[in-house]
Amino acid sequence: MKVFYSDAHLAHQPRYYFPEGGQTEPFLETPERAECVVSVLHKADWAEVVPPEEFGLEPILSVHSAPYLDYLRTAYAEWQSCSPIEGQAFIPGSYTIDRQMVLTGNVPEQTGFFLMSVHVPVTAGTYTAALAAAQCALSGAQAVAQGQRAAFALCRPPGHHAGREICGGFCFLNNAAIAAQWLSGQGKVAILDIDYHAGNGTQDIFYERPDVLTVSLHANPDREYPNYAGYTHETGAGPGAGYHRNYPLPVGTDDSLYLHTLNEALDLIANFDPAHLVLSAGMDIYKDDPLSDFAITHPGIVEIGRSIASLNLQTLVVMEGGYNVEALGKNVVALLVAFV
Amino acid sequence: MKVFYSDAHLAHQPRYYFPEGGQTEPFLETPERAECVVSVLHKADWAEVVPPEEFGLEPILSVHSAPYLDYLRTAYAEWQSCSPIEGQAFIPGSYTIDRQMVLTGNVPEQTGFFLMSVHVPVTAGTYTAALAAAQCALSGAQAVAQGQRAAFALCRPPGHHAGREICGGFCFLNNAAIAAQWLSGQGKVAILDIDYHAGNGTQDIFYERPDVLTVSLHANPDREYPNYAGYTHETGAGPGAGYHRNYPLPVGTDDSLYLHTLNEALDLIANFDPAHLVLSAGMDIYKDDPLSDFAITHPGIVEIGRSIASLNLQTLVVMEGGYNVEALGKNVVALLVAFV
Repeated sequence: MKVFYSDAHLAHQPRYYFPEGGQTEPFLETPERAECVVSVLHKADWAEVVPPEEFGLEPILSVHSAPYLDYLRTAYAEWQSCSPIEGQAFIPGSYTIDRQMVLTGNVPEQTGFFLMSVHVPVTAGTYTAALAAAQCALSGAQAVAQGQRAAFALCRPPGHHAGREICGGFCFLNNAAIAAQWLSGQGKVAILDIDYHAGNGTQDIFYERPDVLTVSLHANPDREYPNYAGYTHETGAGPGAGYHRNYPLPVGTDDSLYLHTLNEALDLIANFDPAHLVLSAGMDIYKDDPLSDFAITHPGIVEIGRSIASLNLQTLVVMEGGYNVEALGKNVVALLVAFV
Repeated sequence: MKVFYSDAHLAHQPRYYFPEGGQTEPFLETPERAECVVSVLHKADWAEVVPPEEFGLEPILSVHSAPYLDYLRTAYAEWQSCSPIEGQAFIPGSYTIDRQMVLTGNVPEQTGFFLMSVHVPVTAGTYTAALAAAQCALSGAQAVAQGQRAAFALCRPPGHHAGREICGGFCFLNNAAIAAQWLSGQGKVAILDIDYHAGNGTQDIFYERPDVLTVSLHANPDREYPNYAGYTHETGAGPGAGYHRNYPLPVGTDDSLYLHTLNEALDLIANFDPAHLVLSAGMDIYKDDPLSDFAITHPGIVEIGRSIASLNLQTLVVMEGGYNVEALGKNVVALLVAFV
């Protein structure tokens, strides 16, 4: 299996994020996350780690807006001088409450138009890292489109919280959505998001599209980020009505409950009969993940991989979250081996 | 002139606000602001400082939503334990980007539904203080409705950034809007907002109403809070189309430019022919205000008062911003004397 990986992510290394209430805490979405996964995969004889091809900006601009890319590209240079934390761009204190609101002028606060949460500090290397991650996803999409059973895009930063022109929850560019959009030129695509957190960005991007089915299993947002999306009543809109599905899960969700719910989601996907599957793979479902309250075990993750692979769809696996650096590599392997 | 004042505001004394990027800075919207104004007015023979009457919650609920009032009432008790700053409720790190989004569950982050900025820390006394300020505004409205030439509601916290169910910029309940809504039962109302910052909350509340004309002169939001509203193209919607007007003003706006623009706004109001005028009076337009980049002088404020009084409308003046505590009292007097 081809594993697309770029070390450009190493330059995206915020020191702190700005959590609630003005505290600074060490940034959890670290370069070590991807490094530990790639080092485990280097040792797997079925994995071929290769750099991404270059697809340029066009496929990214088919998902994200040009002003949003401009923000990501310029934020660090423009606003680092205002930031209380050296090496990170300013995080605004005011946020749009309505996408109809105006973005104009050039005060740092207006970057709040592009942020839904404070967890997205931009550093000097963030834009480059995010672009490289998107190219990894596109390269994986191409491999799958060219006939590979599966490919793995080892993306960092992750992407599934990023909407068309909004970042949040460690995510800047929606790698899975960019890949799915590229693949959608060749037939229907399903995106299955198994990250612990609801894939609100992916949901947002394809919410009115009947040709891209989006399905997300996650901790109920009534207790977890992204808080304002990921509920069962959100099922798509307009021509996309019926083509989004959320499965919010309770505290303590174990292998049994998870797999039962997953099977329901997989039935949905099978009935949709897509040409390709994109799997947003967050390993923060793991019981020992610092962000998780699930009870999913390592054997549970093996079984999750097998269940998804049993769809027999050409599948692009895209790395999302997962913050237990010790376990991340072996959990990713546990998921991927089912596709080998 | 009756001056409605309650010392309940003394209990709303956040120590810090949470400005951009996770820094804590001393809270600028202090009890001293109202105290210095009331002490100057106690010395004015034309001013009669009286406590507000009690109008209950009903007129407040005709402007703000019940869940929003619940948030203000319960936030401190519910979320102070999560806050890194003792005596202040938690400020969330995630914000709604769309009013269609869901408010559910009970995680502190979901208070981000009700906040458009981090500048609204709730303390033990915030709800009581905000209610008392609204009662001051209602008492002033009643005085004017009963035939007084003018009344002054010495409200604190201020209100004009507070929308139907959102707080921001030091504001929790929109005192001017609550008074205007109450007055609108007796005929058309105009609200003129001369605070340095755009009155986005007031704009929001009456945006689709043709019977309440809202007009705001302010620093261009392309450089100042509230950033996302207060632009010229925002002129009302639906039945309210044409009944909102913004006058964004440049850096260095002096008496001459201000008075010229004000006269245009006053013509609008005169043509609207309202039964009553509500004046959102922020004194942060003053040249030596720490938040201002205008060059408005004390004689300029005298002239602003005279110009507005020349409309010969029964007028309720409502205190909004103004952060130069030394000058605040004499500037308020400069504005009010025109109505004596």
